[in-house]
Amino acid sequence: MNYVFSDKVNSVKGSIIREMFKLMGDPEIISFAGGAPAPELYPKDELAEIAQRVLKEQGRVALAYGVTQGYKPLLEFVRERERKAGNLHDGEDVMITAGGNQAIDQVAKIMINEGDTVICENPSFIGVLNSFRTYGANLKGIPCEEDGMDMIALEEALKTEKNVKIIYTIPTFQNPSGITMSLEKRKKLLELAKQYEVMIIEDNPYGNLRFDGEPVPTVKSLDDGNTVVYAGSFSKTLSPGLRVGYCIGGEELMERLDVCKQVNDVHTGVLNQMLVYEFFKQNDFDAHVQKMAELYRHRCHKMLAELEKEMPDYVTWTKPQGGLFIWCTIHKDVDTLPLSRKAIEQKVAFVPGCTFMDDMDKPCSSFRLNYSCMDDERIEKGIKILGNVLKEI
Amino acid sequence: MNYVFSDKVNSVKGSIIREMFKLMGDPEIISFAGGAPAPELYPKDELAEIAQRVLKEQGRVALAYGVTQGYKPLLEFVRERERKAGNLHDGEDVMITAGGNQAIDQVAKIMINEGDTVICENPSFIGVLNSFRTYGANLKGIPCEEDGMDMIALEEALKTEKNVKIIYTIPTFQNPSGITMSLEKRKKLLELAKQYEVMIIEDNPYGNLRFDGEPVPTVKSLDDGNTVVYAGSFSKTLSPGLRVGYCIGGEELMERLDVCKQVNDVHTGVLNQMLVYEFFKQNDFDAHVQKMAELYRHRCHKMLAELEKEMPDYVTWTKPQGGLFIWCTIHKDVDTLPLSRKAIEQKVAFVPGCTFMDDMDKPCSSFRLNYSCMDDERIEKGIKILGNVLKEI
Repeated sequence: MNYVFSDKVNSVKGSIIREMFKLMGDPEIISFAGGAPAPELYPKDELAEIAQRVLKEQGRVALAYGVTQGYKPLLEFVRERERKAGNLHDGEDVMITAGGNQAIDQVAKIMINEGDTVICENPSFIGVLNSFRTYGANLKGIPCEEDGMDMIALEEALKTEKNVKIIYTIPTFQNPSGITMSLEKRKKLLELAKQYEVMIIEDNPYGNLRFDGEPVPTVKSLDDGNTVVYAGSFSKTLSPGLRVGYCIGGEELMERLDVCKQVNDVHTGVLNQMLVYEFFKQNDFDAHVQKMAELYRHRCHKMLAELEKEMPDYVTWTKPQGGLFIWCTIHKDVDTLPLSRKAIEQKVAFVPGCTFMDDMDKPCSSFRLNYSCMDDERIEKGIKILGNVLKEI
Repeated sequence: MNYVFSDKVNSVKGSIIREMFKLMGDPEIISFAGGAPAPELYPKDELAEIAQRVLKEQGRVALAYGVTQGYKPLLEFVRERERKAGNLHDGEDVMITAGGNQAIDQVAKIMINEGDTVICENPSFIGVLNSFRTYGANLKGIPCEEDGMDMIALEEALKTEKNVKIIYTIPTFQNPSGITMSLEKRKKLLELAKQYEVMIIEDNPYGNLRFDGEPVPTVKSLDDGNTVVYAGSFSKTLSPGLRVGYCIGGEELMERLDVCKQVNDVHTGVLNQMLVYEFFKQNDFDAHVQKMAELYRHRCHKMLAELEKEMPDYVTWTKPQGGLFIWCTIHKDVDTLPLSRKAIEQKVAFVPGCTFMDDMDKPCSSFRLNYSCMDDERIEKGIKILGNVLKEI
């Protein structure tokens, strides 16, 4: 039998990153291609002790079906934190999801009719862009400046694109660019979204990982209605393997989300939710995350210093104040996709820029570097090799 | 801002079961409404020991991002078991999913264009029916006989319904009816699916829980091509709270599934997959499941005996050889939805039949009983009360 796939899913290609990961089985490769927390920061011994205790004492809860919305104590923990942060308003609620990605994927399903337009930053996170694609959305990328989305281009797109349903943004320590949107632009973004009646999805997995500069309020905290749907995550602050994140939105949306999550995975793993809750019951959230951010500060500064030293003068890069990524641009007519294959031959991996674009087929002269997982020695060695590869252009 | 939801999701109602669960906070209620394993069968102490060991020794794997397809040792375990069972053929592969539900939800997304038809048993499992609904599918229910779907009605539907994409079946110990499809009908089902070029989704979460009669081959094991997509689950054989299931299908489908799962939840929780794998490494799968089935045999037989004693003569019920459910039918012009509210007032819960139908708005004189979670005393007491409620009709 020949499968006849649905139109919406049929056109979506797999991610180049995954293709690259297959080439990267080689443990000698210095990888700046990932996007995970530093593995030495996983509190594995403490979680081992918690897991044992929770299963022994509350195994009948941890192993049984849970409520779709989430494990109540964790829900209450998130509600309290996010209410304080100004991200949870009256008439809104929280749902625990299998990572922030599921939150956005299910909101996309709830909102998008095939042919609708989603506006995103160009570049943006491929996982979510591909989610929009699988619901048949057209992506319209908005160029990014040092302080975030180009607001003139955004307004133009809102005026001219048809059936715009969602503006998707990662305003803080953006993936892949490391850019943080200014307060002024956040206000403008919200104003435009209200004016054109378009939902904003604010994806904020990195916001807590600030290591330099001053905090900027979330777009969600500036909102007085429910224009902004907020996706949070414990993937970068505790563990991505546990798949625990959450969504905040208006009650009407949350009701739909409850139906969709119910038919998707019924609920997020109960033990996983209990581990997150119990860990942050016995550890201060901010102190724990600050410890992570300090390592990332060190590694980011190290990588920036090495880039300064090793890169030819036709390469520039962003200077993130938090998160996991630096975005490099080669100011020459060059495509970083074939270049990434060359670099892998030299045992260094990065992600070519085209991956993150609304149009993945167009050559792109930028690329993403991740600094969270490599120690000083590997950062030094890797950037040196990369510098040599780029000097050959 | 007023949310404008997508057409496909907008029409789907929440499940009556969930509404009922809210009424059921009362611990005095005798619940025949659930569908979970007996809580005393969760091997919580052993899983506590495994979780501690796995996190201590392999925490950097358990807590990190995993591969979308699944944790390799678990994948290999499933492949080996299912190959032996005849459910995994050349040119096919396995993907680990967040329960069997996610497998089917994502296959539905891959296959269904809005307006396509999905054929299902009438009654069938609401979680999956609602999943089809959220992709804009029309449901066409086929009446069930003692030995499964009415094949004449099925062929008629295949002839007359437009754009039939999927036949969804739970052929073994069906939810909610407890019915097992005969071998003859399984062969006929497969023949019809091939003839009309329609995919079969075989949902088999209960198949291992046989306590009476002789095993019947899965539809998947009778297939020589890839007409059948198979959904398996560890929810009923180990723990539903861990959310670990799997999907088996042709490679082309699995590639699409990989893209869709990647954008949905990236991967199934790694620790959860490791717990399932490690548990069945140190415990024989069949022996473990047999122990569960024996308790269910006892409880099923107990409930059947009590029904015999307490029900008025205008009530009949199915006699399952495994699984978790008995399906009762009142041979009077009565709707079991208001009746279920009456029963809850008397502290007994069951699920009204309309919940499981292609048309949920039509009154239904049947209802579902679950026997897995209540001990003898509660079964006795609950069925007596229920008998009295039904005698009042």
